[in-house]
Amino acid sequence: MNHPTRFDAICHLMEEYGADQLIISDPSTIFYLTGRWFSPGERLLVLLISRRGDTLLFNNELFPLPEDVGLPVVWYKDTDDYLSRLAGALDGEVIAVDKTWPARFLLPLMSLYPAARYIVASPIADGARLLKDPSEQVAMHAASNLNDSAMHLLAEEVTDGVTEKQLARRLMEIYAELGCDGPSFTPIVAFGANGADPHHETDDSVIQPGDTVIFDIGCKKDSYSSDMTRTYFFREVPEEASRVYEIVRQANERAIAQARPGNRFSDVDRAARDFITAQGYGPYFTHRTGHGIGIDVHEPEDVSGINDHLLKPGMIFSIEPGIYLPGKFGVRIEDLVLITEHGCEVLNEISKDLTVLPAAE
Amino acid sequence: MNHPTRFDAICHLMEEYGADQLIISDPSTIFYLTGRWFSPGERLLVLLISRRGDTLLFNNELFPLPEDVGLPVVWYKDTDDYLSRLAGALDGEVIAVDKTWPARFLLPLMSLYPAARYIVASPIADGARLLKDPSEQVAMHAASNLNDSAMHLLAEEVTDGVTEKQLARRLMEIYAELGCDGPSFTPIVAFGANGADPHHETDDSVIQPGDTVIFDIGCKKDSYSSDMTRTYFFREVPEEASRVYEIVRQANERAIAQARPGNRFSDVDRAARDFITAQGYGPYFTHRTGHGIGIDVHEPEDVSGINDHLLKPGMIFSIEPGIYLPGKFGVRIEDLVLITEHGCEVLNEISKDLTVLPAAE
Repeated sequence: MNHPTRFDAICHLMEEYGADQLIISDPSTIFYLTGRWFSPGERLLVLLISRRGDTLLFNNELFPLPEDVGLPVVWYKDTDDYLSRLAGALDGEVIAVDKTWPARFLLPLMSLYPAARYIVASPIADGARLLKDPSEQVAMHAASNLNDSAMHLLAEEVTDGVTEKQLARRLMEIYAELGCDGPSFTPIVAFGANGADPHHETDDSVIQPGDTVIFDIGCKKDSYSSDMTRTYFFREVPEEASRVYEIVRQANERAIAQARPGNRFSDVDRAARDFITAQGYGPYFTHRTGHGIGIDVHEPEDVSGINDHLLKPGMIFSIEPGIYLPGKFGVRIEDLVLITEHGCEVLNEISKDLTVLPAAE
Repeated sequence: MNHPTRFDAICHLMEEYGADQLIISDPSTIFYLTGRWFSPGERLLVLLISRRGDTLLFNNELFPLPEDVGLPVVWYKDTDDYLSRLAGALDGEVIAVDKTWPARFLLPLMSLYPAARYIVASPIADGARLLKDPSEQVAMHAASNLNDSAMHLLAEEVTDGVTEKQLARRLMEIYAELGCDGPSFTPIVAFGANGADPHHETDDSVIQPGDTVIFDIGCKKDSYSSDMTRTYFFREVPEEASRVYEIVRQANERAIAQARPGNRFSDVDRAARDFITAQGYGPYFTHRTGHGIGIDVHEPEDVSGINDHLLKPGMIFSIEPGIYLPGKFGVRIEDLVLITEHGCEVLNEISKDLTVLPAAE
């Protein structure tokens, strides 16, 4: 089912950024516009849109469409010169190209149609997706509700002898049992010192008393993504980790308090970062405060100190400050927020109070 | 651990294709050259190689390296103008760019350094990886041995009432139990008419007597990929499906018989396709006969009727003819082959005889 208002948003942004034609190749953006998923693998998939709103879909014959897509389709075979056919459909002076479109298509196309200037389409394609419409907001709520339930169930699995990988595998079962469509990213389960690497790859480490336990998890539901982090303690609460936990929790809450229309992404980042810095841990908060999320788990924009774009109702992004002490432990607390007319709504409802696992024995 | 002979192969190919500098961004190719995995996510990761063999690695500070990589490294922060720094390191007239490098890096770089001609690096970066050296061949054998074991165990799980998704989840457990690093792609489990779509997405369909059961599965081991398909029957063997099975099996074996140095990829494709066509099912064999495989599960080159490149010792690719009858069923039988001095070695040893499951009750 095509979404006419979303096509309109794209065309308005093409006008604003001076693009005559737009090459969309990202299946997520094509889903956003058409309500249909395409999985072209390494094959060319392009939705060509003109500023007037004309559309043309280039699709490989290997991927038949179950029904009429309501768009004109150019079907091609692997053995066709499909890039020449795409070049033949170009007639603009400025062609905007999806940010992920690979060099193997882009460079030959630029040779086949050298008359145009090629620009990156991010402000157009990503710009439209930045503001979630009501049906998207419903889907984002549903995905985060499921993720809350999964976090609750996963925390119950934390017992002596368990490994990071066992918990990660159990999470996959939990997501299946809850009716999720799958994970939205490879989950991070990190015990103790492993948590000091924000991108730790879940391994066979066995849990030890006094470990911090980071769960950075997300699921997909109806094509929308969730993403949340909680940090628990196993059996004991070392003094420094307890102090750091409270700092991160406050940083998370201070950032959330700044998430409202009129403020900038950088204000949200600063609220978390300034507080952590004032507590003496600034050098150990090594990443941006958050990222946009929607159909994809990572979408524009960055919640970072150099992003001065204004917050607007309908934006959804993560707020995930962390402190990482190499060789010791890490703490990260992450929620998703939806910017509303006058503030924000936090999509995750699971407690952020310091929690020791197992909960009761 | 860097691989000097692999760097040499790259530099020779740069000479052959007239590239002065090479921008490698594909983590698989960087692993191939350095023995190290980088997971830059959306961040810029570039290994810049000059024709003389000079190297420079551009890496985000968020991804510290566990040890000295034996290469000069340019570290950058998210807030740096890192593309200008990359442009500053360019001095060639012809810059070859990894085929997957996205427009969001390529287009700004072309503006920052407009003096060069930009070409797609496939013949260089992929060309080197095409011929697997002895240590890679060992790894490919190991991955396919594990995949054989997994197929054997998975076939034992086929019983009344089971769904496609249950079998796919069981496969993930089997891979973990066998010590695989994970799947090399999302497995395809397809019952009956679902198998008529070669890219069927595994769903909640319940197995029925008389169904064909397609398992298209692969695992990773030590960074190398396996990929194999077997088609089984559940309880009953419908007459047409039995006939089609034997045609596909013979097509698979005829293609394997043509996999030897001196022949071309197209000869292998033709051996399978001509036989299927002669049996009257040509229109139902809707895809190429196979694809290269190694670190990635899909690598160049295509085993297709339009690829007249010669087969050479060290190449590894799939041979996977299939027949897909819409609304009825599908049959596909896939093995990996390694081209040797005088022929080929089949990496999969599991039987291709028509097999009815459950095996014995």
